Amino acid sequence: MIYNKGDHVNEEVQKPVWDGLSGRLTGTGHVLAVRVYFEDTDFSGLVYHTSYLRWCERGRSDYLRLLGIRHNELASGAFPGEPGAFAVRRIAADYLKPARIDEILEVHTSAGAVTKASLVLKQTVMRDSVPIFRLEAQCVLLSMSGRLLRLPPAITSLFSKGGDPCP
Amino acid sequence: MIYNKGDHVNEEVQKPVWDGLSGRLTGTGHVLAVRVYFEDTDFSGLVYHTSYLRWCERGRSDYLRLLGIRHNELASGAFPGEPGAFAVRRIAADYLKPARIDEILEVHTSAGAVTKASLVLKQTVMRDSVPIFRLEAQCVLLSMSGRLLRLPPAITSLFSKGGDPCP
Amino acid sequence: MIYNKGDHVNEEVQKPVWDGLSGRLTGTGHVLAVRVYFEDTDFSGLVYHTSYLRWCERGRSDYLRLLGIRHNELASGAFPGEPGAFAVRRIAADYLKPARIDEILEVHTSAGAVTKASLVLKQTVMRDSVPIFRLEAQCVLLSMSGRLLRLPPAITSLFSKGGDPCP
Amino acid sequence: MIYNKGDHVNEEVQKPVWDGLSGRLTGTGHVLAVRVYFEDTDFSGLVYHTSYLRWCERGRSDYLRLLGIRHNELASGAFPGEPGAFAVRRIAADYLKPARIDEILEVHTSAGAVTKASLVLKQTVMRDSVPIFRLEAQCVLLSMSGRLLRLPPAITSLFSKGGDPCP
Repeated sequence: MIYNKGDHVNEEVQKPVWDGLSGRLTGTGHVLAVRVYFEDTDFSGLVYHTSYLRWCERGRSDYLRLLGIRHNELASGAFPGEPGAFAVRRIAADYLKPARIDEILEVHTSAGAVTKASLVLKQTVMRDSVPIFRLEAQCVLLSMSGRLLRLPPAITSLFSKGGDPCP
Repeated sequence: MIYNKGDHVNEEVQKPVWDGLSGRLTGTGHVLAVRVYFEDTDFSGLVYHTSYLRWCERGRSDYLRLLGIRHNELASGAFPGEPGAFAVRRIAADYLKPARIDEILEVHTSAGAVTKASLVLKQTVMRDSVPIFRLEAQCVLLSMSGRLLRLPPAITSLFSKGGDPCP
Repeated sequence: MIYNKGDHVNEEVQKPVWDGLSGRLTGTGHVLAVRVYFEDTDFSGLVYHTSYLRWCERGRSDYLRLLGIRHNELASGAFPGEPGAFAVRRIAADYLKPARIDEILEVHTSAGAVTKASLVLKQTVMRDSVPIFRLEAQCVLLSMSGRLLRLPPAITSLFSKGGDPCP
Repeated sequence: MIYNKGDHVNEEVQKPVWDGLSGRLTGTGHVLAVRVYFEDTDFSGLVYHTSYLRWCERGRSDYLRLLGIRHNELASGAFPGEPGAFAVRRIAADYLKPARIDEILEVHTSAGAVTKASLVLKQTVMRDSVPIFRLEAQCVLLSMSGRLLRLPPAITSLFSKGGDPCP
């Protein structure tokens, strides 16, 4: 296995036990496995439409986590820059095929355009290597009072202008 | 007050008591009030991004309800056509201003393009008459096994091609 | 109608329009109507078990709201006492009958034992006057850092020792 | 690693990749790791009270999954007995310490009393080996129309009367 930077809160205790919990960095982004549970479905028998967005939010959080960016540090001010939290500014999503209870899905995430104010993340939920959901999410950083912040260089520098991780 | 068609499950008992629960038809669509509760917020102190989508789904459901279309009847086959349930096929959303705990918001819904296979609903979440969230949702009808169904004429006939309610 | 203290954020604009949104005070507590939407159900075709708890949390919030206690004021320090937020300390719940999509339910809330540290709220979800879910929730006030706070007298004084609203 | 019966939908493809996704059987029950994401928190900065219940439902589902019981097979009739879905009949929960964004928690599950009609599962959410939440959940099996079913012997036989896994 590859030890990822910033993978776990308690490295000693939990890293060997729950490896994979934060997904994995790939050459071009990140992948996270999720399971479809009761909570994700609705009475139609299929997955409720916001569940895909919750899974993608997990994928974005774990992608950033493995790059060294953690929400608790952003919010507490431990991370360089004014305390803040990521928020979604715009989303566009396509629901390609329905998912169902008990299925294992993969959330693939890669970075799109990066500016001083926002970061676009492109995400695909896959089932058995087939895309079933696509999302493009423009994310911004808000202060705890809801004001737009500039993204710290420590974040933007992780990506090239085009959004790929910097070599 | 105006008595709306299909407003309540148990007209006798609850209509006078909980008037407004399903929102109201307007000349061009529908409006529903929602309250921001604990469940809708996240640790940033603001509303979580999928909460707006849940509210808009409530708005769509109540708009259709007041036009005489109920999910339980669609699913049970009581409504003309094969049993089915509405599903989201595509969404595009803009988060304009953050919402917070305790606020009262209004979900405004109107119909966009209607075809034999899909219905577009345009929605705006307002706070004190100011738009804070916009959504365009393309909705389809799926059979209980997840297959795409044609929209019954009893549904499409409610709207003109352009999506406005038929006069 | 009865105008309730603290009913709305923007009394002038919204009170006449969305009356009932916060439920109503009764002689012995509070009642709030909720609708079962897609978000509340799961693939079994019935309501997911945590949805009842979300509805009860709405009932508790609106009961306190109509008594003049608002979460945003507790958190901002506008309410007397150290800034804080209500949290659940203990719950016991009985699921009596399943609920389904489109149904209208009523959340009935009354106060149980009140101490300096906690407030017990007793709740019943009713459908057509039949109880389908019962909850007893012991609530405490936590500081924003998660420390237990004493309930301000402005809150405890609203209830007698036994929990009924004070005459 | 130990290969668990019924661990994955697509054994060949995903078992080596996402090992741990379904948690692990222990000598006396099951353990599952969960991460605290945005979706799990509320404006107080802490975890929302129903999130613990969603995590415990995941733990119960994965415990049964690793014992060979899958929700999709129960619902489709592929599992012996009338088609059905598990539902919660009664819960009692203690919130011991608050959890926060980014934390890794473990959901420990073991079986309590088993009868022909219900299965009690005892669960503890741990953080760094410290219990922060305890739940006792009595689960029943409902037909797709909401009627109480007897638990199939294929399920009850997995546990002794006292609830421990049978040797």
